[in-house]
Amino acid sequence: MAGKYNKLTDSLISSLIEIVGPGNVISGEACENYSRDETPNCRPVLPEVVVRPENAVAIARVLRLACENKIPVTPRGGGTGLSAGAVPIYGGIVLSLEKMERILEIDEANFTATVEAGVTLEKFTLAVSERGLYFPLYPGEKTATLGGNMATNAGGMRAVRYGVARNFILGLEAVLPTGEIIQTGGKYFKCSTGYDLTQLITGSEGTLAVITSMILKLTNPAGRSEILLVPFNSLGEAIGTVQEILKKGLRPIGIEFMQRNVVELAERFTGKEIPYHQYASFLMILIEAENEEEILDQASRISEICLLRNAVDVFIPGSERAKRDLMEAREKMYPAVQHNGLLTMADVVVPRSSIAEFVEKAEALTQKSSLGFFAVGHAGDGNVHIMLTGTSSGANEKLAQEILRDIYELGVSMGGMISGEHGIGAEKKAFLPLAMNREKIELMRRIKKAFDPYNILNPGKVLYPD
Amino acid sequence: MAGKYNKLTDSLISSLIEIVGPGNVISGEACENYSRDETPNCRPVLPEVVVRPENAVAIARVLRLACENKIPVTPRGGGTGLSAGAVPIYGGIVLSLEKMERILEIDEANFTATVEAGVTLEKFTLAVSERGLYFPLYPGEKTATLGGNMATNAGGMRAVRYGVARNFILGLEAVLPTGEIIQTGGKYFKCSTGYDLTQLITGSEGTLAVITSMILKLTNPAGRSEILLVPFNSLGEAIGTVQEILKKGLRPIGIEFMQRNVVELAERFTGKEIPYHQYASFLMILIEAENEEEILDQASRISEICLLRNAVDVFIPGSERAKRDLMEAREKMYPAVQHNGLLTMADVVVPRSSIAEFVEKAEALTQKSSLGFFAVGHAGDGNVHIMLTGTSSGANEKLAQEILRDIYELGVSMGGMISGEHGIGAEKKAFLPLAMNREKIELMRRIKKAFDPYNILNPGKVLYPD
Repeated sequence: MAGKYNKLTDSLISSLIEIVGPGNVISGEACENYSRDETPNCRPVLPEVVVRPENAVAIARVLRLACENKIPVTPRGGGTGLSAGAVPIYGGIVLSLEKMERILEIDEANFTATVEAGVTLEKFTLAVSERGLYFPLYPGEKTATLGGNMATNAGGMRAVRYGVARNFILGLEAVLPTGEIIQTGGKYFKCSTGYDLTQLITGSEGTLAVITSMILKLTNPAGRSEILLVPFNSLGEAIGTVQEILKKGLRPIGIEFMQRNVVELAERFTGKEIPYHQYASFLMILIEAENEEEILDQASRISEICLLRNAVDVFIPGSERAKRDLMEAREKMYPAVQHNGLLTMADVVVPRSSIAEFVEKAEALTQKSSLGFFAVGHAGDGNVHIMLTGTSSGANEKLAQEILRDIYELGVSMGGMISGEHGIGAEKKAFLPLAMNREKIELMRRIKKAFDPYNILNPGKVLYPD
Repeated sequence: MAGKYNKLTDSLISSLIEIVGPGNVISGEACENYSRDETPNCRPVLPEVVVRPENAVAIARVLRLACENKIPVTPRGGGTGLSAGAVPIYGGIVLSLEKMERILEIDEANFTATVEAGVTLEKFTLAVSERGLYFPLYPGEKTATLGGNMATNAGGMRAVRYGVARNFILGLEAVLPTGEIIQTGGKYFKCSTGYDLTQLITGSEGTLAVITSMILKLTNPAGRSEILLVPFNSLGEAIGTVQEILKKGLRPIGIEFMQRNVVELAERFTGKEIPYHQYASFLMILIEAENEEEILDQASRISEICLLRNAVDVFIPGSERAKRDLMEAREKMYPAVQHNGLLTMADVVVPRSSIAEFVEKAEALTQKSSLGFFAVGHAGDGNVHIMLTGTSSGANEKLAQEILRDIYELGVSMGGMISGEHGIGAEKKAFLPLAMNREKIELMRRIKKAFDPYNILNPGKVLYPD
């Protein structure tokens, strides 16, 4: 596939400099920073050149040039992806959105914000909260850009009540690979006018179009929040409890689960003890409410259900500091496992009621090997992260990939999918045929062609074979 | 365009009989019932034949036959659409989903239901409520099918809190025009695995694929509901109040607005008086809560805001019967206007804060003519229905279409779209170029081609020119 592409000539590089300005073209060693993302064991690939356009018109010109000359273009947000979606696997141009970082408008009357794609989640949530509003999307990595969040349909911990990235996007501006600029959606919450291109482009991992700006939905801040840490003697009991909580009409913003061995690693990594760490499985339940009274009411109703369902106890942090420590422990679980020789990670989603069975069977698949098995995830929405660890060697990496395949097959056989929130990227594309039939992949390929007839935009991602 | 299609031969009709069974093929006069939908002034077109397949495999065979022989196929749900989306404008085959009306599963553990496309909204909401669950989608017309609701991305009165049709769909089974059967999504709430075909097919008005079954999201029932009728001296005051209510973090399930002249027609039509009918503008605020105490709390907080914002009063029905009467009045506004010589109806969506300005300007556009102007709609989500009335004549119909065009242009110039919930169908396709640039229409056309290379599925709908 790579052979189909041309290399950049000096004359093309001059054209790129003319389009984006000399300060916005990076070549040589400095390209190193754009050769990888945060995928475990990421295999970096150097782009020939990095361009950092400042507006959609410049992006359109870059893409037209790339089409005319058959140069691959890989769009890049914060580079925090976990599926090698931003790695320029065929070289060519990395198109970084880092210079498009303006918050164009926060519209308090309509509860919307219009932002450029390169705005980081951190900058945006701060700006929104300064206006007394709230953007609940919380995939965990605050240096991620909003464009990247939308491109991968990022999820995170607050999805149970608020949904995932695609539930926050009302419209976007995007540049098609052939250079046309389109606008989709708007500041409204209902639309039946043509195909939903907003939703099609969201989650397409930069393979259909370059998102340049977005209209995002805002909401009111919650006022008060709390965390409940609930130890159980088995994952089955923990997951059964999730269903009871939701059946009773309670709507925590997030319900996380974790197994003891992940908790132990997180303790070692942060140097802070987690209460009740000796138990087998945990739920971490995040709640929000308007005021103290409602928080207490929710917390007590949830606690009651947990205890009826055999929870060992319910721990509610007594201080803001203890609350922060608990959140930190959850957020550090991934780096803690990473630190311990992470070989690969699955991001499977299964029906919520099947989580315990899925984890148990996935663990059995792993136990045939010498690899470490760590499970953590979003119990409220069925999204399970399974991390396999071991000493870094070719044999172990191969083994991890084989087990990963078995785990994906298991997830799909239970009515699930192979990625809940990280995307397919380059890393998981070979597994796509496990998740869908040939007819569906062929349809996606025809859609890709409808957007990108020359296959220059983020080639080698999502679809398989390319 | 019609010239591109072939007529059905006796041999093809025999094949259709063989595929769906003799009892499921309708021809001759009985086709009359399948020649129109509920579009104002609908121009009926007789199909050559109606088929009523009982499963996806039969649909796939019908579509393959249609592709091979260049026969147009128009899918049909309940026939309650308002944009002539189910009218077989090029003749050929009407593919009715009426025989696919099984509720396949209600999964209480995962809050999902799996249903065939021909299940009516009425049957489904009843079955769900018998299981103690709730499906809030409420576009108003209960004889509509769920497949039709999804195909048009139906909205309705409860969208402020619960969203529109596309917010309820987790996955679907669909038959592509070329006969392949695909499954998308599943019983999970997060997915980043390939392009979101579920969302692309939803709202595509049967032009991309025939939806055969769907996985829908359920929720908990509310327990208690209430309606507040709030009269104002101007629409501006009413709309300003909506923003205040939402800013205070209150989340009614719906906020409707209506103008005095619509209220008067509804009174005459139902024979029942509406309280405070002498005032200029009204909000009808629908609230839901778990219990009586919460309902009273919400009602009192909303009332307080309304009165601070110059509401004349707040009327809360004292009995279940008075509540039903009020809902009936709202639901009968459309038939009441229809009864009064409805020529055409706009279904514009604008940013919520611009509703009053939009209605005022749209009325000014109409006042140059002798046509009647009636505005009603969903103030909570910016969706405005403008109905133009007059004696039925060629001249008046032409005039209504001209004013409609001006109203659409106005809506788009204010950041809106030309359909919020009814779809484009055949009726509004000529206005599509007002709503989007040529590049975007061309992209939609290429997507259509990726699904339907022979253009046999619901041709002449949505896209323009065909």
